[in-house]
Amino acid sequence: MLAYRERDYSSSMAASASLSKQQLTALIEDTKDYQITHGSLLKVVNTNTEENVALTRAIPVSLSPTRFSRHLFEEAKGLQKIFNRLYMRVASDEEFLHRILKPPIDNDTFKKTLWNIHIAARKTGRVQDVSLKTLRSDYMIHRDEGVDVNGNLKKLQLKQVEFNTFSVAGVYMRTWLRICTSICVKLELTELGGLTFAHNMYKSQDLSRRSGILFIVQHNNFNICDEQPLEYVLWNQEPPIPTYRLNFCDVLDHVSLGPSRELLYTSSSCPFKPLEILVVYFRAGYQPEEYDKKGIAARILLEISRAIQCPSILSHLTTFKKVQQELAMPGVLERLLPQEECDYLRATFAPLYPSDASELGLQARALTMDLGKAASYVLKPSLEGGGNNVYDADIPDFLELVPEERWDQFTLMKMINSPSHDGMLMSSDGIYEGPTISELGIFGVCLWRREVRGGGHEILDNMEIGWSFKTKPEDVGEMSVVKGYGFLDSPSGRGEYQRK
Amino acid sequence: MLAYRERDYSSSMAASASLSKQQLTALIEDTKDYQITHGSLLKVVNTNTEENVALTRAIPVSLSPTRFSRHLFEEAKGLQKIFNRLYMRVASDEEFLHRILKPPIDNDTFKKTLWNIHIAARKTGRVQDVSLKTLRSDYMIHRDEGVDVNGNLKKLQLKQVEFNTFSVAGVYMRTWLRICTSICVKLELTELGGLTFAHNMYKSQDLSRRSGILFIVQHNNFNICDEQPLEYVLWNQEPPIPTYRLNFCDVLDHVSLGPSRELLYTSSSCPFKPLEILVVYFRAGYQPEEYDKKGIAARILLEISRAIQCPSILSHLTTFKKVQQELAMPGVLERLLPQEECDYLRATFAPLYPSDASELGLQARALTMDLGKAASYVLKPSLEGGGNNVYDADIPDFLELVPEERWDQFTLMKMINSPSHDGMLMSSDGIYEGPTISELGIFGVCLWRREVRGGGHEILDNMEIGWSFKTKPEDVGEMSVVKGYGFLDSPSGRGEYQRK
Repeated sequence: MLAYRERDYSSSMAASASLSKQQLTALIEDTKDYQITHGSLLKVVNTNTEENVALTRAIPVSLSPTRFSRHLFEEAKGLQKIFNRLYMRVASDEEFLHRILKPPIDNDTFKKTLWNIHIAARKTGRVQDVSLKTLRSDYMIHRDEGVDVNGNLKKLQLKQVEFNTFSVAGVYMRTWLRICTSICVKLELTELGGLTFAHNMYKSQDLSRRSGILFIVQHNNFNICDEQPLEYVLWNQEPPIPTYRLNFCDVLDHVSLGPSRELLYTSSSCPFKPLEILVVYFRAGYQPEEYDKKGIAARILLEISRAIQCPSILSHLTTFKKVQQELAMPGVLERLLPQEECDYLRATFAPLYPSDASELGLQARALTMDLGKAASYVLKPSLEGGGNNVYDADIPDFLELVPEERWDQFTLMKMINSPSHDGMLMSSDGIYEGPTISELGIFGVCLWRREVRGGGHEILDNMEIGWSFKTKPEDVGEMSVVKGYGFLDSPSGRGEYQRK
Repeated sequence: MLAYRERDYSSSMAASASLSKQQLTALIEDTKDYQITHGSLLKVVNTNTEENVALTRAIPVSLSPTRFSRHLFEEAKGLQKIFNRLYMRVASDEEFLHRILKPPIDNDTFKKTLWNIHIAARKTGRVQDVSLKTLRSDYMIHRDEGVDVNGNLKKLQLKQVEFNTFSVAGVYMRTWLRICTSICVKLELTELGGLTFAHNMYKSQDLSRRSGILFIVQHNNFNICDEQPLEYVLWNQEPPIPTYRLNFCDVLDHVSLGPSRELLYTSSSCPFKPLEILVVYFRAGYQPEEYDKKGIAARILLEISRAIQCPSILSHLTTFKKVQQELAMPGVLERLLPQEECDYLRATFAPLYPSDASELGLQARALTMDLGKAASYVLKPSLEGGGNNVYDADIPDFLELVPEERWDQFTLMKMINSPSHDGMLMSSDGIYEGPTISELGIFGVCLWRREVRGGGHEILDNMEIGWSFKTKPEDVGEMSVVKGYGFLDSPSGRGEYQRK
């Protein structure tokens, strides 16, 4: 996203780590202007009244590109379609998923809530077996400590930080464009396997009814630059693909089912005619607090409708850390993928431990209670999204406060030992200069048909659709950009890092 | 620019003038989000510190499209190339221009300053006879009062409000794209008349030297969304066309002339190699305060260089109201254009009077001192840009305070009687609902070669390149959007108002 200023400054930045005062001032102003004119902004929510136009502030960004191995960047891109396939498989296999999630389901209200939504939908019976999913696999570069037999530093490796399958954020304009042309447009307009998708899925529908895509969003979202651009792209297709935005908490007031379970949406801007929703795209519903009685009923209603869910509730359930952890256990990958692919993926797994009462779990507990050893671990709650991790020496103190029977809600992961680079990071809090750590996210999209009986699935589309790159000060734990920890960045290295 | 939200709301808006509370809330929020994600923002300058990212607020906009005659819209577009030709002719004819501007030059310091810059450049001798110019012709719809012989309301007509030839604002993304591909790219990259332009103009230059376009800007400009997008488009060409931004007040510190009068720019972000500037594009230098000693020297330096000026000083001088007024005098147009074209243009002229000591001037003075009659006139100082006009009954009081020998700096124009439409206008000050008046701006671009002797010229390119549409509350005099009087809008009527 910083193509413009990179061109202007790259020569001097490559030549020298330190900019002159004048260069820095120009760089800061150019960056701010670029962000303002390109919508790289967060709403300052408390200034937003009906009568007033919201103030905005710029999204935190790195003022210079940060080195990232070109070779490992390509490796990460190359893995995405395999990861997509793996997670389609998991989401299609209810039994397997249940077995993975079962132990903590009893203790984890959020997982239990989502699982019960799945059970309720299954009881009513589903009419739509096609699923859509956007994914993001996050990586850091890792180097084992010490030296190899020749006395050299050990080789850099790619390590997966986490795998996100719900409400994936950080997809910018070009990626959005890819997503929409590849999936939403295809669903509506083009043929796949000789059949028009939309017609195939909606053969019973009233074709004269206006149709569209429903974005389920959070009320008063301040991070609109991440989800609105897709809507504009879809509206600007010829012919336009209508999109509508609905707060998750308002779903029941605006949505109902037609005679063939068509999902009918009544817009407040055009209240007379209900519109048929072809795809439900979730950018809300990832926080436990959203699932009060109304939230649960809303999710069930959407799930049992004829509209394609992005993602379905089973796909949503694959986002929990327990799934990532289970896939890292010996022999598990091998039951889902060919050996060669298993080897590729496994090489990116950092050691993961459950904290339940299994043998490995007990081993992990011992690790976490030992201050010295915990100092290179991170304890992750089984929630989607960052911001709830406990690091290093804080882990034993944290676990002291948690009743032991709830420890199995956490996953313990060996910290990735990522080489740092000097960087300059700018946010509305000021400028940070010092050592930084970066994270690469690779986006994937897949569309598949789940066979309700037997756990099989037919892949309809599977793509790697772009990447994001974030950087944070070395001593900060989280990487969330909107929460103010991470900074949007561009990788630098030999060759071009082309966005698709 | 409001294509997205128009699609969503146009049906209900066409059907009914009044929106429900819910519809209005949704419309307001959608509009704000659209503006934030599309860079339709003004910097809040006093929050901009080096260590902090500027806050921004949205540009004032109309919440619904406003009716504008499709027929007159097309008429205005059709006139642009004729106006462009007219003003190229005027800017190429130094004697004619001097005669028009002469009387007030003595009394008007700003005109005198610019004229003296021209004289100084002429003395040194110019090496570049190619000129580039961006123009905007502003119109309102006018209806004569009373009824025609059949008792019907009189016909709607197009009336020119003013003609801008310097630092034309309000050109949005698509227009920028047109400008740059049509002109800047052509200058550098394509052939015209069998000759590569750049090579032709720069045959003596060191071709290995990096070259680019210099934007002359005002320090701390808060309206960046109007001038930055062109830079991004140019940088994103393949190969990129480098652009550099330089404050007008800093020109002398960064610019010098090479042995063949090449304009050499030393950037603060890359201070070692001077870059050769092919085109100087002015977005500053339109206010008298900018022409202190340094400002005058800077403008002369740029004008005598080999770089193409956009616009040259003679083109700049055509922006004064006195030129518009002179062209409206009987017989003047006819000396510059074929009769048929004169008729087209003249039909759009509102009655204009000088306030000098000529016969017409004395007649105008009589008008302005008569309170009853002045109530449908506007008194315009001979400055480029809005914001300095005096309206209606304020005119006599205003002139009381101005020494009579300075009255000739003003032009008196009959007010355009524009039919109003109900509208809803939103800015950071809140929402206005009530009668509104709109203004259509048509953009033009031309490139021509002035024959230094004889006042002739050769047109190299002449285009109409898009439009802008602004609306204001009926009782507000000015239309400036960035000053908070006008609101960006879209015309509505039969058929499509396509941007190019």
